[in-house]
Amino acid sequence: RCFHFCKLPGRVMGIRLLRFTSVVIIVLLLVAGALTALLPTIKDDKLPNSRREPKTQSQSALDSFTLIMQTYNRTDLLLKLLNHYQAIPHLHKVIVVWNNIGEKTPEEMWNSLGPHPVPVVFKVQTINRMRNRLQNFPDLETKAVLMMDDDTLVSAHDLAFAFSVWQQFPEHIVGFVPRKHISTPSGVYSYGSFELQNPGFGNGDQYSMVLIGAAFFHSGYLEDFQRQPEAVYALIDETQNCDDIAMNFLVAKHTGKPSGVFVKPVDIRNLEKDTNSGYSGMWHRAEHLLQRSYCVNKLVSIYDGMPLKYSNIMISQFGFPNYANHKNKM
Amino acid sequence: RCFHFCKLPGRVMGIRLLRFTSVVIIVLLLVAGALTALLPTIKDDKLPNSRREPKTQSQSALDSFTLIMQTYNRTDLLLKLLNHYQAIPHLHKVIVVWNNIGEKTPEEMWNSLGPHPVPVVFKVQTINRMRNRLQNFPDLETKAVLMMDDDTLVSAHDLAFAFSVWQQFPEHIVGFVPRKHISTPSGVYSYGSFELQNPGFGNGDQYSMVLIGAAFFHSGYLEDFQRQPEAVYALIDETQNCDDIAMNFLVAKHTGKPSGVFVKPVDIRNLEKDTNSGYSGMWHRAEHLLQRSYCVNKLVSIYDGMPLKYSNIMISQFGFPNYANHKNKM
Repeated sequence: RCFHFCKLPGRVMGIRLLRFTSVVIIVLLLVAGALTALLPTIKDDKLPNSRREPKTQSQSALDSFTLIMQTYNRTDLLLKLLNHYQAIPHLHKVIVVWNNIGEKTPEEMWNSLGPHPVPVVFKVQTINRMRNRLQNFPDLETKAVLMMDDDTLVSAHDLAFAFSVWQQFPEHIVGFVPRKHISTPSGVYSYGSFELQNPGFGNGDQYSMVLIGAAFFHSGYLEDFQRQPEAVYALIDETQNCDDIAMNFLVAKHTGKPSGVFVKPVDIRNLEKDTNSGYSGMWHRAEHLLQRSYCVNKLVSIYDGMPLKYSNIMISQFGFPNYANHKNKM
Repeated sequence: RCFHFCKLPGRVMGIRLLRFTSVVIIVLLLVAGALTALLPTIKDDKLPNSRREPKTQSQSALDSFTLIMQTYNRTDLLLKLLNHYQAIPHLHKVIVVWNNIGEKTPEEMWNSLGPHPVPVVFKVQTINRMRNRLQNFPDLETKAVLMMDDDTLVSAHDLAFAFSVWQQFPEHIVGFVPRKHISTPSGVYSYGSFELQNPGFGNGDQYSMVLIGAAFFHSGYLEDFQRQPEAVYALIDETQNCDDIAMNFLVAKHTGKPSGVFVKPVDIRNLEKDTNSGYSGMWHRAEHLLQRSYCVNKLVSIYDGMPLKYSNIMISQFGFPNYANHKNKM
């Protein structure tokens, strides 16, 4: 029965009816709007465009890796390398550690030249430190890290193979640049490469480190690195060097085995001559190698022992690039 | 106070005292004898001779290997190879599986040309069977077996390196001859080497078997081999072939991983042309490769599935023979 409204005279009821109807319509629209917001969003791949559907996050974490590239004063090389590395198979994301303090990152330019195969994040640093790249970045979602120097080009074929090798040796640093330490009768260690005498364990040479400037390793080691003695950070900061030697010590201590597995690269290039900046990298400093020997001895003192172990295993890819690269006289 | 003895007259006491003293002396001698027997035995190495002290059994078992070499109708090659292999580092013993039925072994001649670096035992067989070499020989004391065909020469350097690799991958067949199977759309498998198409897992080739005619493997697998389905023995006996394929199936099933690890040999030679016997080995038979494809399919049927897995890992020795064999343009 019609009480309040019906008693009113015609005009007044008309206006109130109008108000009431308006309110009802507005409420209905709001409810409809709310419902629309709750609907699942239409996936991109159902839209009529040719983009491929991105993998779900859990799949990616296990069978992909994150590239971490620290850069200082070589933005031209960085961008050249990013064009190459952004398309490597199994790459999940790129983290650029921006050591150009006070300088804008190329993020705007990067975005304007999109779309890109993978996300790239620029981590702006406050101090130009060598060990900035060894932070435990929250952006890291994968188990595997690929760390590259900002002047090093490794072919996609080499990287795809080395990643598959890392998956078989996940507790090791799997990479392309082997180095070693040697003992001397005085007990003082020296750092070097193949030009240095063999450690004397049977035939041939041995390596006891794989440098992280071109290598895969488990992201867990970045976490571990945050828990090292203060003296380690002080050493790396003092020399602006040796973060890679420290990582090898860390890994060797953790596994009790040789820290690295060396994969012989087919195509690895150093692009530092190609930079316009004129900046040519820390390893050209006169004291670079002496510093590294110094670091080996300091780290032995900090860790109270020499954890590095030797290996002479050199891994290559069977049947690539030459399908008969294992052929022999038999 | 002196009761019983003191009462007796002098002579009786004298005899009884003598008896008592004799008994005491005998008892003391027996006790002394028993104590001497409990003393530790003098070790051999304290004897004045110039031979090197043989390692104790437990040391040898872990860091040495047993060479098992089956031979048929190529005694001249056998003896040439024995001269080479008897001196390989870390060799513990040689077991020659003598498939020359009814023929005397060269044991007498062998002994007359002693001394030899290691013991060599000739196991006389009653039937000429390919699988004779896969018996669980009681003479086997080491964890590692090196199995070699009687026409194959591998350098000591290669063997020493491959043995060290086996020690890092003891559940795999670590050797010098990689082979593969491929699938075909019909589901029928085919057996071959690098001339066969790549299995199509990324770049390059893959191998799924390492042949046991030039390889290290764990002696436990000889034990396992005795427990295979009868049909496997029947297959090997029927073809006088495929024992090595069967071993790869066994190992792959056991580990759930690729059965083999391929070590690229620097110096491997087939000496079959050098034999005076004119006998040139089973692999020259027209049907040899077809038989092996046949075996792959039979074994899949016997084991109700294809356990073989692919690998593209090729291992070489770092810095040997060329101390800079890993050098790159960087």
